[in-house]
Amino acid sequence: MNDSYLKFVNSPFGARLARSLGLPKPEVLRRYRADRPEFDGLVAIGAGREPRLLDALANLVASIGVTSVAHESAGLWVPLAHRHGLMTGRFESAEAGAQGKLAALLFDASGIEDSSHLAPLHGFFHDTLRSLGKCARIVVLGRPPETCESPRQWTAQRALEGLTRSLGKEARRGITANLVYVAQGAEGSAEATLRFLLSPRSAYVSGQVVRIDAGAPGRPADAASASTVPAFDWSQPLAGRRAVVTGAARGIGASIASVLAAEGAHVIGIDIPSARDALDATLRQLNGTALAFDIAAPEAAAQIAAALDEQGVDIVVHNAGITKDKTIAKMTEATWQSVIDINLGAQERIDDALLAAGILRDGGRIVGVSSISGIAGNSGQTNYATSKAGVIGRVQSMAPRLRARGITINAVAPGFIETQMTAKIPWTIREAGRRMNSLSQGGQPVDVAQTIAWLAHPGSAGVTGQIVRVCGQSLIGA
Amino acid sequence: MNDSYLKFVNSPFGARLARSLGLPKPEVLRRYRADRPEFDGLVAIGAGREPRLLDALANLVASIGVTSVAHESAGLWVPLAHRHGLMTGRFESAEAGAQGKLAALLFDASGIEDSSHLAPLHGFFHDTLRSLGKCARIVVLGRPPETCESPRQWTAQRALEGLTRSLGKEARRGITANLVYVAQGAEGSAEATLRFLLSPRSAYVSGQVVRIDAGAPGRPADAASASTVPAFDWSQPLAGRRAVVTGAARGIGASIASVLAAEGAHVIGIDIPSARDALDATLRQLNGTALAFDIAAPEAAAQIAAALDEQGVDIVVHNAGITKDKTIAKMTEATWQSVIDINLGAQERIDDALLAAGILRDGGRIVGVSSISGIAGNSGQTNYATSKAGVIGRVQSMAPRLRARGITINAVAPGFIETQMTAKIPWTIREAGRRMNSLSQGGQPVDVAQTIAWLAHPGSAGVTGQIVRVCGQSLIGA
Repeated sequence: MNDSYLKFVNSPFGARLARSLGLPKPEVLRRYRADRPEFDGLVAIGAGREPRLLDALANLVASIGVTSVAHESAGLWVPLAHRHGLMTGRFESAEAGAQGKLAALLFDASGIEDSSHLAPLHGFFHDTLRSLGKCARIVVLGRPPETCESPRQWTAQRALEGLTRSLGKEARRGITANLVYVAQGAEGSAEATLRFLLSPRSAYVSGQVVRIDAGAPGRPADAASASTVPAFDWSQPLAGRRAVVTGAARGIGASIASVLAAEGAHVIGIDIPSARDALDATLRQLNGTALAFDIAAPEAAAQIAAALDEQGVDIVVHNAGITKDKTIAKMTEATWQSVIDINLGAQERIDDALLAAGILRDGGRIVGVSSISGIAGNSGQTNYATSKAGVIGRVQSMAPRLRARGITINAVAPGFIETQMTAKIPWTIREAGRRMNSLSQGGQPVDVAQTIAWLAHPGSAGVTGQIVRVCGQSLIGA
Repeated sequence: MNDSYLKFVNSPFGARLARSLGLPKPEVLRRYRADRPEFDGLVAIGAGREPRLLDALANLVASIGVTSVAHESAGLWVPLAHRHGLMTGRFESAEAGAQGKLAALLFDASGIEDSSHLAPLHGFFHDTLRSLGKCARIVVLGRPPETCESPRQWTAQRALEGLTRSLGKEARRGITANLVYVAQGAEGSAEATLRFLLSPRSAYVSGQVVRIDAGAPGRPADAASASTVPAFDWSQPLAGRRAVVTGAARGIGASIASVLAAEGAHVIGIDIPSARDALDATLRQLNGTALAFDIAAPEAAAQIAAALDEQGVDIVVHNAGITKDKTIAKMTEATWQSVIDINLGAQERIDDALLAAGILRDGGRIVGVSSISGIAGNSGQTNYATSKAGVIGRVQSMAPRLRARGITINAVAPGFIETQMTAKIPWTIREAGRRMNSLSQGGQPVDVAQTIAWLAHPGSAGVTGQIVRVCGQSLIGA
C-alpha cells in the first residue's frame, strides 16, 4: 500500500540524492480531488490535414473551461475557436523551452489519409513536448483504422498507435499519452472519454487506445449534435443510477463503490458472507446497500437477480476475483477450477441472470475486471490468466449482442496496483513490478475505480467491447 | 552477434557456477539443420470434450512420422490413431516424473464451449508439463473466438490465450508454447503451421496466437480433405517460386534470402546501390538475382516492377528498414520522414506497383517486417514505432482485399535479434533486452527468416492478416 521509494525521492534530500546517483524519480501523480479544479492550464492544439474533430475539441474546450493555444499545424483552430466564442492564442515555438507551460497536447489526426502525411505529428510533438508540465496529458485523435475505406488511410491511422505509445514512454514526469479513435458520426459522443483522459482521474491510464463508436443503432448518432448522450449533470453523472459492485467489502472493490457513489450512484455492494462486517461498514458510509452472497455458489446468480429484481440496476461491476498461484504441475484441479469459476464463471452467470430478466436496464453498463496477466500470461498463474483472458472474450462476445439495448460492456485490465495483496509480494519482485512502467510506480485502487466510473458514465455510450489497461503503460504485454 | 553469457552458462564450469549462484541459465536452442531429422521423439495428445481436430492431428502425426501417446483426457485418440494406421500408446501419469520423455504436447480444445469445461486443460498440462524435454513444443488448438456462435463458447476459446501464454512463461528450458485457432472448414489447411510450430525452425517463436482460416473464397475449403493446399513437396516447398527480398545484402535480409533459397525459391535480392558488392556476393551464393535499387527513391517502385515484369513473382518480403533514434524533441523532420518512408512508404509503393500490374501472381505471399516497438512503442523511436505500427495497419487493411486472389499478407514482429545493429547497444541495455523473454536470450536472424519462410509457404494459404512476433515471448508488449 506504501511506496516508500516514491515518497523518499520526492523529499528534498531524496530528490537531491536521486539526482546525483541518477536514480529514477517517479512523479507524485496528480489525482482527482473534489476540492480542486479538475481542469486548468493551457491546452495546445495540433492537427494534420483536413482535421474532422476540431469542432468536437472546441466544444470540449468550452465545456471544461480551459484556454487553448494553436500550434502552427492547426491553422484552422483560431477562427474556429473564435466562432465558438473561445479565447485562444498561438503556440510560439520560441517559448518551447519554457517547461511546465502546457497542461495538455491535443492532436487531431482524423483527416490523415496516407503515411506520407504524418509529418505534422512530428512537427507538433517536436515543438511542444518539452513545454508540458508534470502530470500533463497527451491525446491523439484519429479514425478507427478498420472503418477506413482505403488501405493507405487505414495504415496511416493505425500508425498513430506506435507514435502515441512511444510518446507515453518518452514523456515521463507523470505525463500520460492515449489515442482516441472517433468513428464517423460519433463526434458528439467523445466528450466523456476526452474529459476522463484529460482529467487527473486518469492518472494511471497511459498508452491506451480507445474507440468511440456512434452508439446503439436504436439511438442513431447525429454528427451535428451530441444527441446520443442522454441528459446528465457532469458533476453528478450517475445520479439516479443503481450500481452493483461485487467484491465491494475492501480494497479495489470498496474504492469502486466509493467513486461510483461520489458520482451520484446508489451502490449495491456484494461480498462473501464472511466479509459481511467490512461490507456493511463500506456501504453504510456510502448510503448504499450491502448484500452478502457467495458468488461461487451455483444458486447465487438467481439470488442476486431476485434481490435486485424490484428496482433494477443500471451498472454492474464484476470486481470480485481471487488468485491462487501455483505452477500448473503443482496446482490441484480444485485450485484451477475455483479461480476460473469465481473470476469468470460467476460473471457469466450473474450477467445472464440479470440480462434474461431485464433487471439490467436498457442503456446499462457492464464492466469486468481483467488483468495484465490475462493479456500477457504469467508464470504461476495459468488459472488466473486463463480466467482473465476469458473476461476479454466475454466483453468481446457480448458487446455486439447488447448494442441494440444500448448496454455497453467493457473491462479494465489493472497492472501493478498498490493493495494489501501486492504488499505481500517479496520486496525485489514488488519493486520490479512497480517500476516497470512509464510512470515508474504502482497505481492506486482509486485509479482502477475512476476508470470504471468513466466506462459506467452515461456519456460513454459509444465505448463498448473494449479492454482498457490501468497500468501506467506497463512494459509487460503481448 | 555473440551472447557470451549463453555460451558460458552452457559450459561445464559455467553451468555449475550458474546453478550454485541461482543465475538464469538460458538453453542453447535447437535449430533446424538439414542434416538432422526435423521431427522426432514422443508427442503427447490431450483433448477437451468433443474435440474436432483429432483427425487433422492424426494426419500430421502420420505425415511428420513421430510417435504419439494419448493422455487420459484424449480417450478418442487411440482408436482414431489406429484407424490412421498409427502406432500409439497411453501417457502414464506414473512416469510423469521422467523429464525429457516428451518432444511435444498437443491439446485439442476446439470443442470446449463453456468456461466450466476448461478443466481437461489443467489435467493434461498438470500431468505432462514436467515430462517435456529441452526445446520441446506446446501447441494448444482451438476455434477462432470471433467465429463462435455463443458468447460462452467465444469466452472459453478466448481464455485459451491466457493459458497458452502462461505455459510459455512457466515452461522455460527452451520450450515454446503457441495457440492455433483453426476455423471450421480449415481443418485441412493447418499442417504447414503445425509443422512449423513443432519444428526447430520456430525456435524463437513463443507465446503467439495464429489463426487458420479456410483460405481464399475462390478455393473453397473442403473439410474432408486438404484440397485448399496446392501440390508441393514438403522438402522443397518453394520450388518453382520467385521471391523478392528487400534489404537482402546483409544481416536478417541475407538470412531470409538464404532460407527461402534453401526451400527451393529463386531469390531476387534488392538493396541500395552502395551495398551492391555485399548484395552480389549474397545472391551469387544462392544462385539468385541481385537488383540494386534505392527503395526510398520515388521512381524505385516502378523500376522494380519493370525489372520483375517479365517473369513475375510469388513472394515479396519487405525486410528493408532503418532506425534513426532520437527523442522527438531532438528529432529533425528529415529524420522522422526518412524512417517512415523507407520502413512503410516504400512497402506501400512497391506492393501497389506489383499488384496493379499483376506482377505478384495469384496465390502469392506478402510478408512485412514490423517490430515489438511497433506494437508497444519505444522511447527514442517515435518515427520507427510509427512506421512499424503502420506495417501492422498495412497487413490488416490489405488482407481482406487480397483474399479473392489467394494472396496472403502477414508480418513478423522481431524482438531482440542478435545482429550487428544490436551488437552496438550498450552492454547493460543489451543484456536486459536479451534476457527479458521466456527463453532468456536474443534470437538469431535465421529465426526471423524461418518464420517468414513459413508465412511464404504454399501450405500457409489460410494464414493472412496476421502479425507474428519472433521474440522468444518477450515480456514487452501492449
